[in-house]
Amino acid sequence: MNYPRNAWYVASWSNQLPESQLAGLTILDEPIVLWRTGGKVHALADRCVHRLAPLSLGRCEGSHLRCMYHGFLYDSSGQVVAIPGQDKIPPRARVRSYPAVDIHGWIWVWMGDPEKADESLIPATYSIDDPQWLQGQGTIDYNAEAQLIHDNLLDFSHLSFVHANSFGTPDDFSESLPKVTALPQGMRFERWLVNTPSPFSHPEQLVDFYQQYDFLVPGILVMWFGGFTAGSAQANNFGRPDFSRATSDVGCTSQAVTPMGPRQSRYFFSTGPHRSHGDEALKDAMMATTQQAFEEDRTMITAQQAIIDRTPSPTVIPSAHDRGITMFHNMVARLIKEESGGRAQH
Amino acid sequence: MNYPRNAWYVASWSNQLPESQLAGLTILDEPIVLWRTGGKVHALADRCVHRLAPLSLGRCEGSHLRCMYHGFLYDSSGQVVAIPGQDKIPPRARVRSYPAVDIHGWIWVWMGDPEKADESLIPATYSIDDPQWLQGQGTIDYNAEAQLIHDNLLDFSHLSFVHANSFGTPDDFSESLPKVTALPQGMRFERWLVNTPSPFSHPEQLVDFYQQYDFLVPGILVMWFGGFTAGSAQANNFGRPDFSRATSDVGCTSQAVTPMGPRQSRYFFSTGPHRSHGDEALKDAMMATTQQAFEEDRTMITAQQAIIDRTPSPTVIPSAHDRGITMFHNMVARLIKEESGGRAQH
Amino acid sequence: MNYPRNAWYVASWSNQLPESQLAGLTILDEPIVLWRTGGKVHALADRCVHRLAPLSLGRCEGSHLRCMYHGFLYDSSGQVVAIPGQDKIPPRARVRSYPAVDIHGWIWVWMGDPEKADESLIPATYSIDDPQWLQGQGTIDYNAEAQLIHDNLLDFSHLSFVHANSFGTPDDFSESLPKVTALPQGMRFERWLVNTPSPFSHPEQLVDFYQQYDFLVPGILVMWFGGFTAGSAQANNFGRPDFSRATSDVGCTSQAVTPMGPRQSRYFFSTGPHRSHGDEALKDAMMATTQQAFEEDRTMITAQQAIIDRTPSPTVIPSAHDRGITMFHNMVARLIKEESGGRAQH
Repeated sequence: MNYPRNAWYVASWSNQLPESQLAGLTILDEPIVLWRTGGKVHALADRCVHRLAPLSLGRCEGSHLRCMYHGFLYDSSGQVVAIPGQDKIPPRARVRSYPAVDIHGWIWVWMGDPEKADESLIPATYSIDDPQWLQGQGTIDYNAEAQLIHDNLLDFSHLSFVHANSFGTPDDFSESLPKVTALPQGMRFERWLVNTPSPFSHPEQLVDFYQQYDFLVPGILVMWFGGFTAGSAQANNFGRPDFSRATSDVGCTSQAVTPMGPRQSRYFFSTGPHRSHGDEALKDAMMATTQQAFEEDRTMITAQQAIIDRTPSPTVIPSAHDRGITMFHNMVARLIKEESGGRAQH
Repeated sequence: MNYPRNAWYVASWSNQLPESQLAGLTILDEPIVLWRTGGKVHALADRCVHRLAPLSLGRCEGSHLRCMYHGFLYDSSGQVVAIPGQDKIPPRARVRSYPAVDIHGWIWVWMGDPEKADESLIPATYSIDDPQWLQGQGTIDYNAEAQLIHDNLLDFSHLSFVHANSFGTPDDFSESLPKVTALPQGMRFERWLVNTPSPFSHPEQLVDFYQQYDFLVPGILVMWFGGFTAGSAQANNFGRPDFSRATSDVGCTSQAVTPMGPRQSRYFFSTGPHRSHGDEALKDAMMATTQQAFEEDRTMITAQQAIIDRTPSPTVIPSAHDRGITMFHNMVARLIKEESGGRAQH
Repeated sequence: MNYPRNAWYVASWSNQLPESQLAGLTILDEPIVLWRTGGKVHALADRCVHRLAPLSLGRCEGSHLRCMYHGFLYDSSGQVVAIPGQDKIPPRARVRSYPAVDIHGWIWVWMGDPEKADESLIPATYSIDDPQWLQGQGTIDYNAEAQLIHDNLLDFSHLSFVHANSFGTPDDFSESLPKVTALPQGMRFERWLVNTPSPFSHPEQLVDFYQQYDFLVPGILVMWFGGFTAGSAQANNFGRPDFSRATSDVGCTSQAVTPMGPRQSRYFFSTGPHRSHGDEALKDAMMATTQQAFEEDRTMITAQQAIIDRTPSPTVIPSAHDRGITMFHNMVARLIKEESGGRAQH
């Protein structure tokens, strides 16, 4: 698996990790147990030092975790603090602990060097709790490499083809290239659709539609979009419009694609309208369309994975739209190289 | 997988490939997309040059095929002729094309050197459209090597044991050996059953029953059979009888076993009576018995495959009935050797 | 797979092998066909010498077995005695035969050197037919290594945690260590629980509860237990009590964990009360609790197996309770070493 380790990965929705309940999952093929006590999130390797039973089948005892196979007791740093039937605890009886935080409605886990775990690196995603937005919440599991889903999100030209039936994106959308700008943690994509139906709320009304998204390591998408009166694209010289002047379909979406294991990924997403541009009904309609579209992606990407798996030496021929993919792959390759040049992480 | 490439493989029933619909399948573990425009059949590698999405999830546009991931457009030779968002097409943007034809009710695909794709090598199977015969049509998928099904068809002594309940073949059928003759593309098996119930239409009537089948590379069976008045075997000196003098149960069957991938095979078959010896009801009865028998084969061969898979160095002890299998294996080995001696096919 | 071969493995319940019916199974990843004629049990490699079809899909013909693919006939020693279509039988046409016996309600198969197959090595398990005991009978299949189930049975400290809800074992059970004694074929575990509720029949009554079990190669558990009047542990100096003085819940259990293949095991068990201490209702209650408890084990061990499988170099940190496991592993390692020092078994 070819992903950076010094990065914050989305492990779970915050609202799916209640106080004192254990959750087992894998990130980068490493089993991890998550739990929360007194608001603080803990993440340990999900593997008892004794006989490798999963700690996530254990139970919370205050801020401690009890393995429910033979009763080893762990503190939240991963140190064993009690073993039934013996008084002495070997100091090496400890499991790896991962930095973990609850921010913007997601639990984020840092997979690399704990000393480099800087919370300011967590991107400003739109939280489902953000009072400015009405958002629905979805999770999709994939039997495919996370990287293939990243690639999908780094090239929206697929909207014309994969999502012709859901988002209704016209063919000519794929004929123009977005503006792509490098960011410290990824890249920004910007695009005007001129004289197009306002997709969600006013399909009968022609607008100039603007969309902007950042795609950030290790696989986070943050996007907003909105309809503007005809002529706005030209008036803004095809640059970024003033958000406050949007007239319809102002919405946002946050998405995170986490590599769980080889050919196993979990896709977290939320989307919906700005409160001043929509209501619960519009939110539900946007979520339904998005769910349908993401199932279209899953069908395509899972089939693509199957073809790749039976291709002895898979190679690709990039198109002009692949610029964002190439930039992102290069950034990831650079990060991985930097990590291996420092002290070993694994 | 150990099969010749310079051979016509059955990929599909003709009547299951409607005009302008894409069909994805694999032969020799290679993904292939089939479609038909204006009566002509096209077969391309089912793998977009761009990012390896399956073309079979695409759409027909006239005689062209559009990949529905990012919109690459292919002509029927496999050349990319349009890429959304760019004007220049790299000449190397093309996928492999396979010779493909629609003959005798089947779509045949040539997996080897296209220059050697000679349609006259396609055997004269009984088409389900042949007006002389009434035939039913069946398809069975196997989780087993095609070669194990070939071996099954090359040794009919199994009828006495596997098909005692369906075809009702008596034990002593397996005590006598068929006449086996080498053909350019395979071998011919001939057999008289003396004084035996006419199997399908007149079980109360004792006849001399004749059956003849050819088994041809890469895995095609063509067979006819019929009942003759008692004494006919002797009168014909146990040689081939005059077809027109048959008195009952004159029928035919065509069968093709295609290696889809490792331990994955597709078995196409048709069978039924000659129109002068049967009607729709007899055809249906023959098909029902054949379906039952082929499920018996599948149970046995799938279990055989499982045993082979857990046997470290599987070896066999051939019996006198294995002569056909040995001859066919030798022919296949010779063809594969000849192919590797010529220019590389893969 | 790391198990001794010179050992009797439980292959089946006796009452599940009726006269003249073939049963196919695997032990140590070797396919075996079992059948019984005139009371004698036969065990052969389940793989026809001809084309490796499973003999377990065949039919019994007296004490012979007919392969139902092409009709090869075997005697009970594994020698082919008839081949359809030919008179001569190659002497090498024989399959491996395994010593097999029906003792104590189980069919036992010896997987190693037949000359060393000594029936006196079969442990004195409690047969479900033993008139002194009322026992229920259960079978559970595991997708896990048999060794992990052996380890589970060699360390009862898990009862406090895995079986808190079924057997109701209190936490402090795991704080004391059993007495462990080496036996020629394994080891004996003995334990007093002082002043504890009599678990099955009289939970309202406090007793001193004694349990003793032997765990024997290749994976057999034989156990009895019973409640004694308060003070008995002390009075017996925490040694073995006089069985006849038990006052409640005298019961037994026999268990066998057979490695079928990699990560595939079959767990045979029986349990119930002594006739002088219980009735059918108590037997059923004990079986229900045991079934529930063994499902708890299966959940934990299957999850443990999954963690081990995704751990690159799994290591364990043994606790004081692991003494029995370590002793048993050493005994098994010694047996395997002895076998490989003698003449080859495979």
